[in-house]
Amino acid sequence: MTMICDRLWTNARLATMTGTGIGAVEDGVIAARDGRIAYAGSRADAPAFAPVETIDCAGRWITPGLIDCHTHLIHGGDRAAEFELRLAGASYEEIARAGGGIVSTMRATRAANEAELVTSALPRLDALIAEGAATIEVKSGYGLDPESELRMLRAARQLGRERPVRILTTFLGAHALPPEYASDADAYIAMLCDDLLPAVAAEGLADAVDAFCEGIGFSPAQTDRLLSAARALGLPVKLHAEQLSNLHGAALAARHGALSADHLEYLDEDGIAAMARAGTVATLLPGAYYFVRETKLPPIDGLRGAGVPIALATDCNPGTSPLTSLLLVMNMGATLFRLTVDECLAGVTRNAARALGLDRDIGTLEAGKHCDLAIWNIERPAELVYRMGYNPLHARIWSGQ
Amino acid sequence: MTMICDRLWTNARLATMTGTGIGAVEDGVIAARDGRIAYAGSRADAPAFAPVETIDCAGRWITPGLIDCHTHLIHGGDRAAEFELRLAGASYEEIARAGGGIVSTMRATRAANEAELVTSALPRLDALIAEGAATIEVKSGYGLDPESELRMLRAARQLGRERPVRILTTFLGAHALPPEYASDADAYIAMLCDDLLPAVAAEGLADAVDAFCEGIGFSPAQTDRLLSAARALGLPVKLHAEQLSNLHGAALAARHGALSADHLEYLDEDGIAAMARAGTVATLLPGAYYFVRETKLPPIDGLRGAGVPIALATDCNPGTSPLTSLLLVMNMGATLFRLTVDECLAGVTRNAARALGLDRDIGTLEAGKHCDLAIWNIERPAELVYRMGYNPLHARIWSGQ
Ligand SMILES: [Zn+2]
Ligand SMILES: [Zn+2]
Repeated sequence: MTMICDRLWTNARLATMTGTGIGAVEDGVIAARDGRIAYAGSRADAPAFAPVETIDCAGRWITPGLIDCHTHLIHGGDRAAEFELRLAGASYEEIARAGGGIVSTMRATRAANEAELVTSALPRLDALIAEGAATIEVKSGYGLDPESELRMLRAARQLGRERPVRILTTFLGAHALPPEYASDADAYIAMLCDDLLPAVAAEGLADAVDAFCEGIGFSPAQTDRLLSAARALGLPVKLHAEQLSNLHGAALAARHGALSADHLEYLDEDGIAAMARAGTVATLLPGAYYFVRETKLPPIDGLRGAGVPIALATDCNPGTSPLTSLLLVMNMGATLFRLTVDECLAGVTRNAARALGLDRDIGTLEAGKHCDLAIWNIERPAELVYRMGYNPLHARIWSGQ
Repeated sequence: MTMICDRLWTNARLATMTGTGIGAVEDGVIAARDGRIAYAGSRADAPAFAPVETIDCAGRWITPGLIDCHTHLIHGGDRAAEFELRLAGASYEEIARAGGGIVSTMRATRAANEAELVTSALPRLDALIAEGAATIEVKSGYGLDPESELRMLRAARQLGRERPVRILTTFLGAHALPPEYASDADAYIAMLCDDLLPAVAAEGLADAVDAFCEGIGFSPAQTDRLLSAARALGLPVKLHAEQLSNLHGAALAARHGALSADHLEYLDEDGIAAMARAGTVATLLPGAYYFVRETKLPPIDGLRGAGVPIALATDCNPGTSPLTSLLLVMNMGATLFRLTVDECLAGVTRNAARALGLDRDIGTLEAGKHCDLAIWNIERPAELVYRMGYNPLHARIWSGQ
């Protein structure tokens, strides 16, 4: 039997990311047909191929295309001036008076049209792509009014037409309370549930719904209401939870069958158990932990012990994680959180796919999945985690191309 | 009067790095002639130019080409396997038994010929250059025998012929005690002072001499002997000091008129005062601080108060700082050490030049200096410090080209 395929990568070492480790295959081949993987595995076990094109990888390592499962890539402006002021000793009040904080990003986002939002996000997107990212989640949440939130989601969708990359959009209207609803968060949540979320769903603009459950964000009751509304519309949910305090948001998310709960520095045992039961992924964001100089570590051993899958993401955002490198995320996961090399690699492939509800389509090198490959000039996968500020990507393949 | 020049950059914003801040010029021009800056400053004050070529910078920012004043860029092998083992829970003994530690880098370096050392360093050098680095210091110190140390320095010199970059070499034979001299560090230091250092000087292979003064390195008495021998040969000195403990190495270095003392987490008031008196630069290495999870901060306020110039560098090395990004170094300087944006920028330009004894030739945008420019796609210099894993370099000019 000869397998007809479009492209065949030979003489490669594979980190298939199947099983529990990295699923290494020393003498591997990958065949693609119609954008999907037709075969990935050892040469010895492979069928005969009739490829249109053959690429000799000269022994290089191939991983699945990387996945950034938590970003705020679309936003107006930046917060470099605020960063500079804070280092110069300015207080939070002084920064607020100087127009800083999330409100400044909201204003800049509202002031930008869709094309401007896309244009400003493209260099950030290109930085991720240059390191082998194939799939990227992008949230709304800086518009905070119906028109601006819809515009952010349309801009996010447009990114996927501008570049060879898979964009997953998440509606995060409940990111912060806009000034129009100051002191009436319940009314804002009601507007989201009754008006905006149905509009988002009707236009097919969101692949999931997220919220910021925190003392400075939304209460568990408000979050619960929003997640219920999302599920009633058939949308999967996820949650920013336990970043600054423990409001038991992860357990709340798990009760809604959330794809992931994200941040989790203040997660407790009950939250871990609830996530384990629900199959909710723990998405850790070491860039934000580093940038805000957090000292409370997420409960890594507890997550491991309970078998909760751990994903890693950039959290790319202007206020607390202006980070556009999944390689650096892996290094931070290892250095700051003491994740193993295998855990870091799984965090930006297999488990990130699961955090997006796409584990049947991406995240491992397996027949049937999208043929998203990152081909690396390295001698061992640990180099991807070990180095800082170094990009050994040799080539990137997206959907077989 | 019309100034004849080879190239003219117009419509630029300049961070000249003159004075105490960044020396910003909003409507700036730079003229180059014979590889040096003929004029850098405001358009309003500029003479008339007769350039061969004019480059419109469209309002972009120009900084001096960046300077990495402390690297171990030349070495054999890497330590990714050791990094992986440690994260998996291996003890230091287990890692040593598995062939880890500095001895593994020594073995790999000894086993590599000069061309192999150059070839393996080039991707690291290219990563630095891609972010605007124009001048890079490179140390020996992994050969630890005469032939291998000389080979490392020749390989470092060769880097400067392979790429448009200024390489400064530093002899660091006293980096660690080689197995051949186990338990007789004095004899190794005697060999360095009496034989190897004169040979290095005779071949013109080193621009400076460095040592590792530490409990696990060399004693102050041994360091003193080595620095004296270096000075007797007319070579400037610098020192790895106060990284893991306080042996008063910085004060010792200052007594020798050292260009810089480097690391300095355990530096005390007396050391600061000695450095201030001698004009010794404090070269801080936040990448190593981060990578080894150090928690003791260098005495930033003390250095500031005493007026000690602060430089920042990658310390690029396989064991404790596999880092090849000066942009990330600046972010770590700000995030981990709370340096201001201006201090971070001065740390990789003006003060790094001084740490190399090259402050008359590089480090600022001033007439007479080498025309090394980094031209950036940014709206304010703070962006260079604020972002993580993002390279906004538009163009790099080295010696006017
Ligand atoms: Zn977030
Ligand atoms: Zn060093």
